[in-house]
Amino acid sequence: MQAHVPVPLRTLFLDTHDVARLIGILGLPACLRGLAGTLRTDYLRWPDFDKAARIAAYSEQGTIELMPITDGTHYSFKCVNGHPGNGRRGLPTVMAMGALLDCDTGMIRLLGELTLTTALRTAAMSALAAQVLARRDSHSMALIGNGAQSDFQALAFACLLGIRDLRLYDVDRGASERLARNLAGAELPGRPLSVRICDSAAQAVRGADIVTTVTAFQGRARVLDAHLVEPGMHLNAVGGDCPGKTELDPDILRRADVFVEFPPQTRKEGEIQQMPADFPVTELWRVLAGDAPGRTRTEQVTLFDSVGFALEDYSALRFLQVQAEAHQVGTWVDVTPGQTDPRDLYGWLLGAMQDLPALAS
Amino acid sequence: MQAHVPVPLRTLFLDTHDVARLIGILGLPACLRGLAGTLRTDYLRWPDFDKAARIAAYSEQGTIELMPITDGTHYSFKCVNGHPGNGRRGLPTVMAMGALLDCDTGMIRLLGELTLTTALRTAAMSALAAQVLARRDSHSMALIGNGAQSDFQALAFACLLGIRDLRLYDVDRGASERLARNLAGAELPGRPLSVRICDSAAQAVRGADIVTTVTAFQGRARVLDAHLVEPGMHLNAVGGDCPGKTELDPDILRRADVFVEFPPQTRKEGEIQQMPADFPVTELWRVLAGDAPGRTRTEQVTLFDSVGFALEDYSALRFLQVQAEAHQVGTWVDVTPGQTDPRDLYGWLLGAMQDLPALAS
Repeated sequence: MQAHVPVPLRTLFLDTHDVARLIGILGLPACLRGLAGTLRTDYLRWPDFDKAARIAAYSEQGTIELMPITDGTHYSFKCVNGHPGNGRRGLPTVMAMGALLDCDTGMIRLLGELTLTTALRTAAMSALAAQVLARRDSHSMALIGNGAQSDFQALAFACLLGIRDLRLYDVDRGASERLARNLAGAELPGRPLSVRICDSAAQAVRGADIVTTVTAFQGRARVLDAHLVEPGMHLNAVGGDCPGKTELDPDILRRADVFVEFPPQTRKEGEIQQMPADFPVTELWRVLAGDAPGRTRTEQVTLFDSVGFALEDYSALRFLQVQAEAHQVGTWVDVTPGQTDPRDLYGWLLGAMQDLPALAS
Repeated sequence: MQAHVPVPLRTLFLDTHDVARLIGILGLPACLRGLAGTLRTDYLRWPDFDKAARIAAYSEQGTIELMPITDGTHYSFKCVNGHPGNGRRGLPTVMAMGALLDCDTGMIRLLGELTLTTALRTAAMSALAAQVLARRDSHSMALIGNGAQSDFQALAFACLLGIRDLRLYDVDRGASERLARNLAGAELPGRPLSVRICDSAAQAVRGADIVTTVTAFQGRARVLDAHLVEPGMHLNAVGGDCPGKTELDPDILRRADVFVEFPPQTRKEGEIQQMPADFPVTELWRVLAGDAPGRTRTEQVTLFDSVGFALEDYSALRFLQVQAEAHQVGTWVDVTPGQTDPRDLYGWLLGAMQDLPALAS
């Protein structure tokens, strides 16, 4: 980790403490707003991106996925797992890392954690979608599933949509109590949060303007029955995000207008994997760009079938890069040998071996 | 980069100085032998691996590729670029990084440079193939193309096959002179190397037992004409490794018995991209396993159409992991938050923000 190579070849490394520090410096609300702004800007450039569904390796215990994307200027990828049984071992269900490269040289500019960052960008993306899909007068949200992602969802909706009335439900009441404790301590500008733990999904959902589902259920779950959905609701379906894992009753999908990130991926991974291949959906970027209608009627039920798309990690990495450089957070590392003559890799190796004190001893 | 999380969640980070140091500790010959041994062991487990051709993003200046693979126990990927014009900017043509994960938890065990490592594993792989394909009495090798990879090819063939007579050719004589200087300083067990710079490919190839082509030519190059190929030669074709980039006259392919790593990838990227889709090839792993013949006749022309397969990076990462842990090389980093309660990512973030001196000021 020493400074032996010319600066232009070095890579900015952000570990999870660096990202926490950056969030601390910016403040979480500013961080969520900044991320949502970057996401919006990048989604408006949708046609610029070379898009592909993620590449997954499945094992009995879970999945490991690679999510690459490029706009011809930068290239990013994320490597992320999903292991539902990890909680029982005291490990996070989802862990991620990623990198940002320059397309014109292939240089690795940024390398870092994306676990914390994924939680933030997913929440910022949900809030960005709700800004164009939820009713403008929304002030209450039911939060079904109160695990690691739920705090960030609650705070993003509080910061970006002014949601102040939160109703929590989880099959494990302890999870809701944990979330409620964290939210009670959150310092937000404006009105304080009202947080209520509910005894059922039905109780949480009744009268809510927005319903966010973000459970860790495996298989075809029904965390929300169709009869609970009320006219005018916006549904933010976050938890159904891989083949075989869904949260919603298909009747809800038939009743709602469904908005998605990247249709080829969402049809494999999202709630709409339960529907026929031609089930009508609207790409969210078109709504953001004003090319397609979002919410058109007060009583309309809108649904953001969120699965998490590579573009969002691209945006998050770009946001981290700009902010980390501005605030001098992170460590510069040498992932690439910095030989003066690019052809002389072996010569560089000889020099690097000689430079090392451990070899002199 | 501080030690705030339980050890089991930490990731071993190897920068390029760490890898150089490890090579220095082991010695380059032992490193090449160890890598070749790991490659052999893993190739013998070929059916255990979930294999896919790499995923490439193409731009005008070059390519960036992801190469994932798993055997159900470990998962690895490499991110590697190929930018032929980088040399003119003083940058390496090829740079790479990668990671090794546990399949049963998704935990990132190793993260590191793979530029230097790729040069080593490619050379070790070439030598491993030549061990079963070249004539047993081989002692001379022509090396066409004397760039960053060539030193490692020369040393791997010297260390693993006992090659002592090297004939160098490059369109840029300066490149050959650079290589000759490096090889003159190489300390190898046994007989010294004889190194000769040639004025043409023809001069280098005449009478050689092995011919290695490892040029950076773009497009359909002809670095070796068919009439130069002599009975009994083994050809190690390293440079043709992406769509549109080949080094050999198709007549050579028709005359030789062709051995490949992973046919679906080699048919897109290797020399055989010039041939029909049913052009006969033998998978190298079958030869290593004794399931298919390698060289059967002295006068046979054998050709290893090397493109570099993800399995080789898996082997290299496993080798690095074992050796780095044994010799305590590298840095333990936190790519993953280490919260005590996996559900309480936000609680971890609050704690991590408070821990940081920069926030207290």
